Amino acid sequence: MATPLALPPNTSPETFKNFLAAVSKTVGDENIRVVTRLEELHDGTYHEQPRTHDPHHIVDQDYFLASAVICPRSVPDLQAIVRIANEFQIPLWPTSIGRNSGYGGAAPRLRGSVVLDLGRHMNRVLEVNVDGAYAVVEPGVTFADLHQYLVEHGLRDKLWIDVSSNWVWFLIWVEARFLGILWRGESGIHLTEANHWMMHCGMEVVLPSGELMRTGMGAMPQPKKLGEPSVPLHEEPGNKCWQLFPYGFGPYNDGLFSQSNLGIVTKMGIWLMPNPGGYQSYLITFPRDEDLHQAVDIIRPLRLQMILQNVPTIRHILMDAAVLGTKTEYTSTKGPLDDAELDGIAKRLNLGRWNFYGALYGPESTRNALWGIIKDAFSAVRGAKFYFPEDIKQKSVLHTRDKTLQGIPTFDELAWIDWLPNGAHLFFSPISKVSGDDAMLQYSVTKRRAREAGLDFIGTFTVGLREMHHIVCIVFDRKDPDSKSRAHWLIKTLIADCAAYGWGEYRTHLAVMDQIAETYNWNNNILMRFNEAIKNTLDPNGIIAPGKNGIWPSTYQKSLYKL
Amino acid sequence: MATPLALPPNTSPETFKNFLAAVSKTVGDENIRVVTRLEELHDGTYHEQPRTHDPHHIVDQDYFLASAVICPRSVPDLQAIVRIANEFQIPLWPTSIGRNSGYGGAAPRLRGSVVLDLGRHMNRVLEVNVDGAYAVVEPGVTFADLHQYLVEHGLRDKLWIDVSSNWVWFLIWVEARFLGILWRGESGIHLTEANHWMMHCGMEVVLPSGELMRTGMGAMPQPKKLGEPSVPLHEEPGNKCWQLFPYGFGPYNDGLFSQSNLGIVTKMGIWLMPNPGGYQSYLITFPRDEDLHQAVDIIRPLRLQMILQNVPTIRHILMDAAVLGTKTEYTSTKGPLDDAELDGIAKRLNLGRWNFYGALYGPESTRNALWGIIKDAFSAVRGAKFYFPEDIKQKSVLHTRDKTLQGIPTFDELAWIDWLPNGAHLFFSPISKVSGDDAMLQYSVTKRRAREAGLDFIGTFTVGLREMHHIVCIVFDRKDPDSKSRAHWLIKTLIADCAAYGWGEYRTHLAVMDQIAETYNWNNNILMRFNEAIKNTLDPNGIIAPGKNGIWPSTYQKSLYKL
Repeated sequence: MATPLALPPNTSPETFKNFLAAVSKTVGDENIRVVTRLEELHDGTYHEQPRTHDPHHIVDQDYFLASAVICPRSVPDLQAIVRIANEFQIPLWPTSIGRNSGYGGAAPRLRGSVVLDLGRHMNRVLEVNVDGAYAVVEPGVTFADLHQYLVEHGLRDKLWIDVSSNWVWFLIWVEARFLGILWRGESGIHLTEANHWMMHCGMEVVLPSGELMRTGMGAMPQPKKLGEPSVPLHEEPGNKCWQLFPYGFGPYNDGLFSQSNLGIVTKMGIWLMPNPGGYQSYLITFPRDEDLHQAVDIIRPLRLQMILQNVPTIRHILMDAAVLGTKTEYTSTKGPLDDAELDGIAKRLNLGRWNFYGALYGPESTRNALWGIIKDAFSAVRGAKFYFPEDIKQKSVLHTRDKTLQGIPTFDELAWIDWLPNGAHLFFSPISKVSGDDAMLQYSVTKRRAREAGLDFIGTFTVGLREMHHIVCIVFDRKDPDSKSRAHWLIKTLIADCAAYGWGEYRTHLAVMDQIAETYNWNNNILMRFNEAIKNTLDPNGIIAPGKNGIWPSTYQKSLYKL
Repeated sequence: MATPLALPPNTSPETFKNFLAAVSKTVGDENIRVVTRLEELHDGTYHEQPRTHDPHHIVDQDYFLASAVICPRSVPDLQAIVRIANEFQIPLWPTSIGRNSGYGGAAPRLRGSVVLDLGRHMNRVLEVNVDGAYAVVEPGVTFADLHQYLVEHGLRDKLWIDVSSNWVWFLIWVEARFLGILWRGESGIHLTEANHWMMHCGMEVVLPSGELMRTGMGAMPQPKKLGEPSVPLHEEPGNKCWQLFPYGFGPYNDGLFSQSNLGIVTKMGIWLMPNPGGYQSYLITFPRDEDLHQAVDIIRPLRLQMILQNVPTIRHILMDAAVLGTKTEYTSTKGPLDDAELDGIAKRLNLGRWNFYGALYGPESTRNALWGIIKDAFSAVRGAKFYFPEDIKQKSVLHTRDKTLQGIPTFDELAWIDWLPNGAHLFFSPISKVSGDDAMLQYSVTKRRAREAGLDFIGTFTVGLREMHHIVCIVFDRKDPDSKSRAHWLIKTLIADCAAYGWGEYRTHLAVMDQIAETYNWNNNILMRFNEAIKNTLDPNGIIAPGKNGIWPSTYQKSLYKL
């Protein structure tokens, strides 16, 4: 095969060719694509994302570049590829559906790594179990796929899924209330990083050695025909609790396969939500910038008491404005918009400076009781207004939320990326207490830095149970080098600012993984030394995702790959 | 110091003496106790449990025997002890309050290990944070201690704790609904194994090297004065989210310190429950043995829907009978009681063959709505009766549950151990689907085997969200060798029976850890090989809890220690 544009470090074209030849014997040439020409690097659309590089390239388009893309058809394929990669010491970068948008997409941290596109073939819903309210899925299954499965099998009246179809941080099932804080990886039901952590149950993992391991109750002899949805697991011999009880016996290892480079998850159980028997989405608008403070302090106790049943979000006006139009449709101003312009946009969209989206679950009596308490509490904010979807005639984010909050995936909100021409974005997401003081301080810091970078502040605060995520959407023009470098400067600066304030991030773009990892350096960086010790034991050749989240195997000299 | 009765393997009295001399320089002789005489081996009371051996000894009283008991006063003490243990290659067995009753108490798996009694000195509630609804505790803090702290600080109206004061599997806070399935270790808030797994947030761990690590957000620079409750953390500089957000950046490592021998947890955050604003406990009785089937199938959907807000339990009549009296108070029969006798006892106690204990949480309107649904559903069981505590005049388990289900610890239920003279017990807890078929099959298997062993069946079914725990309480006479060996035979036989049916256990007594670990042997025992690889990397000298849950470091030859 042809020589790739980007070879892995210390790998000759000859070695790489031999590696591919060996892989080809397993998966066939049709499942191998060598990245040979820059012209191939189209940034794609949301529905067809490139697997070769980051479509939202904050650095040069070919900096985070794959040498080749391989699409295993099955677990045995994947095991064989991993064994061959060990033999030739070729770094692999597993990805599910490659939509880790704002974090690097499908692109590898280490230039020249081979991207494993698991989503292409390994995308089956293996089982949906109604009694146990769970599904077993392969890495390529998206929320849309799973929802479609429920609809096609007439299960939608029994089971709902938690939709996180990119940018949708809301959670729809009652026991999933923690999940907003648990989004740790790609969009889609992403099996190479933990997503909706608490709701996953049982994993099958290809280890860096190529061996296959099952966690929890999966380590007992299992029903034979897993993977044949036509034969329900519960009719098979073997342990039936792999997707019912997460822990098994001894250490709970699943976390090692979340946001890590210690294995490739090939099957996962995910708990579904029983249809709650009733549903109502709503919007509450707050007119003033400073209302954020009061709103967050009102949210905290309501959230702890589960009166707010899912993960609520308070969106800045520009977040909604960007979903409904591009910047040029609102203003001719090039730089960051000022308060007067923001007020004008809010007026025009009939929204507040901050807009709070939520939903009520359960029978009408329950919903009414909860709504009474919620309305009462937020009425303390002067000028707060309350809406149900039917109250709003114009196009509105609430109409999208009304779908997603009941488990119906939609991509409508992605439009906000086009706020600027050639729109691309980075996410910056510091974690803080659920407090008005923290919210206002984070908001003022990020707003000021965004202004310094000549960019608009677009962001939202989402509230887990006991912590708050501040999701800052850094939108830039990926074809304007200046815009890109300003966005890059902004995120690096915000990471340092927030670390100084004691705020940390829980996931990030390839370009700043090392910087963020270094902020978790308590006691002479013991956590990283611990992670590296485990990495080097399980993956002595350092073939699985070198550099992911700042963890580099001993086979690579970290400092050589600093940006 | 004197030579212990039981020395660690391959350790000369001289070496052990030198080890203790070195440790003594750190903690002082007053915190070291060498176990030199059999007469010392009193089995103790619940409130004063021995740290030297298993008070419920299923094998010889001195089989699982400590060489010495050391009580570190602080984290630096503990770090020093671990470093010295590495130097002299002495195995350590960390325990919190030593009440792992039914599982071995404080006793080590490997005879001659040094028991680390963390509960003696490291037992402070370091902080209770009301806004964040969490506590930070040391390993020796019990539920009673934490409850007492809340009462003394006037916080009881704001925060409740989840009580699991041994044998109480119920869970009292709404977001803790998973916790029943998460009890993985000792009683008390136990920091060397995970207990209430989902509700823990953030750990500080002494690694086998003696280094100190903090997980999650704790790996960022922390507030300085942690450990001084007088200074609330949120007024300190540094990251404030250690107890608010469990994950941090990169792999989620906490699970490695649950039910493992990879480190010693010295601080842990635990989420508390906001006072739900209302509470009502209840009892539902079912008259017939076979009602278990119908009751479990009624429970499954109610539990999934969260109409049953906490972890419900269906107790066999003898479980309650044993709490209220000894066997001889009910009958002169020596062997297992038959149905007629069980019916007689039920009649006398005004209970059913199966008795279901639960509670409702929230304002009265919520509780009434839920109670209506629950009563309705269980009325389908012919002869089911419904009680609130005030309906019952005689002494009743419901009166205990009424306390524990609202977070008030009590030891009253422990009385069931005295069903037989010199009462001792083993727990056997297979996991299954929440289904009537599984419940009846497990019940019939265990009842039959108990009968073969000449023992009464005493057990309860507790229901997590998607799985069921069958807690079989094997009560025996610890001073009767025949009774002991029959109990030992029973648990070994049940483990094998259940493995054949595809049911696994998630925790167990020291004596059968290896047997259960071997049932999780899928794919050539890859899970155990994975656990051993990590064990040998983090603990090359194999000093932390060798043999725990079947995980033996390479420094010990597993086969030599088989029972």
